[in-house]
Amino acid sequence: MSSTDFAVDRRDIRFVQKEYLKVDDLCGLEPFGDFNPELFEMVVTEGLTFAEEVFFPLNKPGDEAGLKLENGLVVTPPGFQQAWKKMAEGGWMGMTAPTEYGGQGLPLSVAVAVQEALFGANPSLYITMLLTQGAAGLITAFGTDEQKKLFGERMIAGQWGGTMCLSESQAGSAVGEVLSRAVPAPEGHYLLTGAKQWISGGDHDFTENIIHLVLARIEGAPPGTKGLSLFVVPKHRVNGTGAIQAPNGVSTVRLEHKLGIKASPTCVLDFGGTAPCHAYLLGGAGQGMAQMFKLMNEARQQIGYQGLGAAAAALHNGLDYARERVQGPAIEGGRGSGQSAIIHHPDVRHMLATIRAIAEGLRGLMYKVAWMEDMAHHGPPDNREYYQNLADFLTPVVKVAGSDLGFEAARLAIQVLGGVGYTEEFPLAQNLRDIKIASIYEGTNGIQALDLVGRKLNLREGALLEALMHLISPMVPTRAMASPLRQAIVWWREALEGLSRTVEELRKATANHGPRQGVFNATGVTDYFTHVMLAHTLLDMALTAEEKLKGLFPEYPGDPHALAAFAAQNEEARFYFNKIKTAEHYVTQILPRVKAVEAAVASNSFAALEALW
Amino acid sequence: MSSTDFAVDRRDIRFVQKEYLKVDDLCGLEPFGDFNPELFEMVVTEGLTFAEEVFFPLNKPGDEAGLKLENGLVVTPPGFQQAWKKMAEGGWMGMTAPTEYGGQGLPLSVAVAVQEALFGANPSLYITMLLTQGAAGLITAFGTDEQKKLFGERMIAGQWGGTMCLSESQAGSAVGEVLSRAVPAPEGHYLLTGAKQWISGGDHDFTENIIHLVLARIEGAPPGTKGLSLFVVPKHRVNGTGAIQAPNGVSTVRLEHKLGIKASPTCVLDFGGTAPCHAYLLGGAGQGMAQMFKLMNEARQQIGYQGLGAAAAALHNGLDYARERVQGPAIEGGRGSGQSAIIHHPDVRHMLATIRAIAEGLRGLMYKVAWMEDMAHHGPPDNREYYQNLADFLTPVVKVAGSDLGFEAARLAIQVLGGVGYTEEFPLAQNLRDIKIASIYEGTNGIQALDLVGRKLNLREGALLEALMHLISPMVPTRAMASPLRQAIVWWREALEGLSRTVEELRKATANHGPRQGVFNATGVTDYFTHVMLAHTLLDMALTAEEKLKGLFPEYPGDPHALAAFAAQNEEARFYFNKIKTAEHYVTQILPRVKAVEAAVASNSFAALEALW
Repeated sequence: MSSTDFAVDRRDIRFVQKEYLKVDDLCGLEPFGDFNPELFEMVVTEGLTFAEEVFFPLNKPGDEAGLKLENGLVVTPPGFQQAWKKMAEGGWMGMTAPTEYGGQGLPLSVAVAVQEALFGANPSLYITMLLTQGAAGLITAFGTDEQKKLFGERMIAGQWGGTMCLSESQAGSAVGEVLSRAVPAPEGHYLLTGAKQWISGGDHDFTENIIHLVLARIEGAPPGTKGLSLFVVPKHRVNGTGAIQAPNGVSTVRLEHKLGIKASPTCVLDFGGTAPCHAYLLGGAGQGMAQMFKLMNEARQQIGYQGLGAAAAALHNGLDYARERVQGPAIEGGRGSGQSAIIHHPDVRHMLATIRAIAEGLRGLMYKVAWMEDMAHHGPPDNREYYQNLADFLTPVVKVAGSDLGFEAARLAIQVLGGVGYTEEFPLAQNLRDIKIASIYEGTNGIQALDLVGRKLNLREGALLEALMHLISPMVPTRAMASPLRQAIVWWREALEGLSRTVEELRKATANHGPRQGVFNATGVTDYFTHVMLAHTLLDMALTAEEKLKGLFPEYPGDPHALAAFAAQNEEARFYFNKIKTAEHYVTQILPRVKAVEAAVASNSFAALEALW
Repeated sequence: MSSTDFAVDRRDIRFVQKEYLKVDDLCGLEPFGDFNPELFEMVVTEGLTFAEEVFFPLNKPGDEAGLKLENGLVVTPPGFQQAWKKMAEGGWMGMTAPTEYGGQGLPLSVAVAVQEALFGANPSLYITMLLTQGAAGLITAFGTDEQKKLFGERMIAGQWGGTMCLSESQAGSAVGEVLSRAVPAPEGHYLLTGAKQWISGGDHDFTENIIHLVLARIEGAPPGTKGLSLFVVPKHRVNGTGAIQAPNGVSTVRLEHKLGIKASPTCVLDFGGTAPCHAYLLGGAGQGMAQMFKLMNEARQQIGYQGLGAAAAALHNGLDYARERVQGPAIEGGRGSGQSAIIHHPDVRHMLATIRAIAEGLRGLMYKVAWMEDMAHHGPPDNREYYQNLADFLTPVVKVAGSDLGFEAARLAIQVLGGVGYTEEFPLAQNLRDIKIASIYEGTNGIQALDLVGRKLNLREGALLEALMHLISPMVPTRAMASPLRQAIVWWREALEGLSRTVEELRKATANHGPRQGVFNATGVTDYFTHVMLAHTLLDMALTAEEKLKGLFPEYPGDPHALAAFAAQNEEARFYFNKIKTAEHYVTQILPRVKAVEAAVASNSFAALEALW
């Protein structure tokens, strides 16, 4: 272990999955009947090792080598091809894909641990895999039997790559402005023309073929999002057995030169500009946006995982360095008391506790949302709508929380290291560069905030928010509660009350001033939800930890010194003890940020809109 | 003008210097008697143009080319040498250096505008110049007449470079651990041995010689900071006329590979390891730390300017892009109303207003602190102590505010641009990478917070804080005040009251719990001071703007629509109108962050210190 390596927090992952969410109970649900707890554990353990041993060693070399565009083809860094192949051979590509198409059919809430680790170990490599699986998911959901078999199964197996082609130069956040056109050909396919940009994994040398899902407008279709359809566009045309026949008029025009994820090919693609491009309609005409949103919702949660992976990596590197690095006298002992490892300096400790709270809070929240998705799709039918409402509401929260707090963790970890954190010798500079993209792709965080505040808050007559309140409201600080967490829960409830007031103020702003004023603080309010949810999750996990701790230390809480002394001697007790302290840190040091949002909204001031720009 | 270029905000600089701080009045002070307002203006105008035309065009090429270490010598990017030469020839190096040593003797509060621009245009290049001038300042302050003439004057002229060599691998933030040794030689000089790291401008090809100021311990001197002396150590030995004689045993061992400021040579230097290294004591033995702090205090303020330069550049690029980029329907008009420039989207507007408030707030604050330094050194003798107290207290605030809020502005500007902001085609990615160093070098921001909270808050029996309160307390919202700023001032005063409570809580934490608990929230409390000071400065400037606006629009404030309509038609009125809106934005949207600090401190919770790490 060193501050330049990578290691997954197996203990915390086990806690969240087994002790907090009890994912083993999912084996009782119909589609997971073939699994058992040992199998879950084996998959996760092997997946984490795979991330550590296969993905991470390529992370820095990939960043340094970057990508080349040679003769119109993208050349990826040394070793990436082999890693893709190992991933495919190990069956890791289709972890959550249905078994009928060759996937492993794992619950999301089990697979998420491996996804977190792969993202943390090598985000550049993993993002292309993830989008391949996303595209495969759309084909298996909406495609014809032939499309499923020909394209979907090969993508799930990792034999072919996949992409999602939405953005055009005039159509980024405004997807409805797409100009790509599809004209029906007599043979039944379409001829597609258009240029797409920001295509992650748009070209690469991992696979012999790449299946693009392209958003385009069938000739004569109405303008705006309603006229958009989704097309399956292979890089190379194939026959019915999957044998490659000929290039399909897809060319890579440019590779973006980016701040981070430098080994992830972000391409400008041209369709049909150099040669005819055959495209196959996916599902019905005009269904493009609806189909795309299925993928986008999954992808947005997964971008959250990227932030979690980044935060967890930052915690590992920051903590390791702070334990090893000796510098300055311990404040307690004064000047005469010799040098101290920097982890003992209060400011460093504060930063590390924040990084830890972010990493563990994001893990708890994201695994829980993954579990909600499992329940929404496979749980008892009566509860499915409830869990879907929860997952839908929390999707933008997960995306924003992961990307923004992941970035904050990366920034703080650099600060823990000081000068060496600023060098590229340590992995934290790359971590910061890589994670920045997460606040931008799959819909900028501003778009997420609009989705949450402008749409989901009032969707289905408020049923989504209602479901959330139903989930979190039961956490109350009873008078009888002897827990040291009682006060933290009091503070959390105050924050929750402030959230209700703030949502009410937003509604008033819309009514009294207009729609622009109503969403002026959308980002702030999204942050408010983030902090309330992270604090709730950390407290909820701490309550679980408390129960476990009582089993080890029956006089809990007892005398604080006795408790700390016991925990210091017992590895399991120490873990649970720290879970409680982490929740307390978040509630007292981070959650209060919501007060700033409440005040900003309550000020009823929109100076930025009134200024003359 | 485009979103990939650089331009200095001349109008706002003129406002801060001439209208707000009235720097022209400094011509009435003794050492500035040879200046006049036209001369001040000419220097600033030419300096800003120099930054735009000479410095900025090298910024991106310098980042791309980086540095090489060839045969033990640092090779800088193409064009950097010539820019250094032009800077020296134009007399820009010694802008604020005393005229008796060849400097221009300008007030700091005049020169700061040029410094802001040089930092914004090309931080990699400017940092080496700045440290050269800092080192020259120490030599002219503490050196012998010969040292001043031989070394100081040549450095002020830019003929030779200069550095500050403090850190060693075991002595970063803990300067007292320095191991470098100096042994007296019979000839009167010392023989120095040691290795120093993080030396900005440690080697380069700009000048034929580099004068290092090296912190070392004379053989037999006591341990800790008290035993440290400062030595003048030329890269090449020279004779009394400055002619270069022979190499002086200084070698460049390594160049750091950094996240940003890639064209700034950050070196590991070895002294006396390969050949004897002659060193000349600066001032008295054991004075090293005191001397160094003179430079450090200047340098810390200047690192603040780096943040200001970064924020101003981010504002320019972000604003330009947001005005040009059309995307999505305007919310007001709904879907049918066509596409809108993104500057009209509320979330983008919120971000831009924040960036603007940061840039203009930092400018106001930093120019004001520079003016305090002018007054402390050259103002009426009775007030000098007062201004020195102010400047001393605000030095860590300036450093932290500049580096952290400059980073925030850079981050937000990337978000304004979205995908293109993440590419290296636009200057914002480099801006983010470059500014990150500012929170680390010249004392990490954690060290600054300790300086403010652990030291300056109680220094000279609290006289520093008292001076600050004397400065800012007079801003009160009188009942008679017809200004739209009245409510903002009310809110600012509430924040100020919260600050007093928070400082009191800190004192209690120290008394009740101990010194570690007393500084546990030092960073948060430093942020509290930052926000209170930035809001005060923005409000104070807005009150000045209001007076100017009344001159143009006598019925001010009058009907808000009439005022806005008038301001939209009149360029000057528009500028003043926006100053008021910017202050309002900061007070309502950013200042409330202090509530989180107050709550964190008031929680009296130190979970991060109690956790078992």
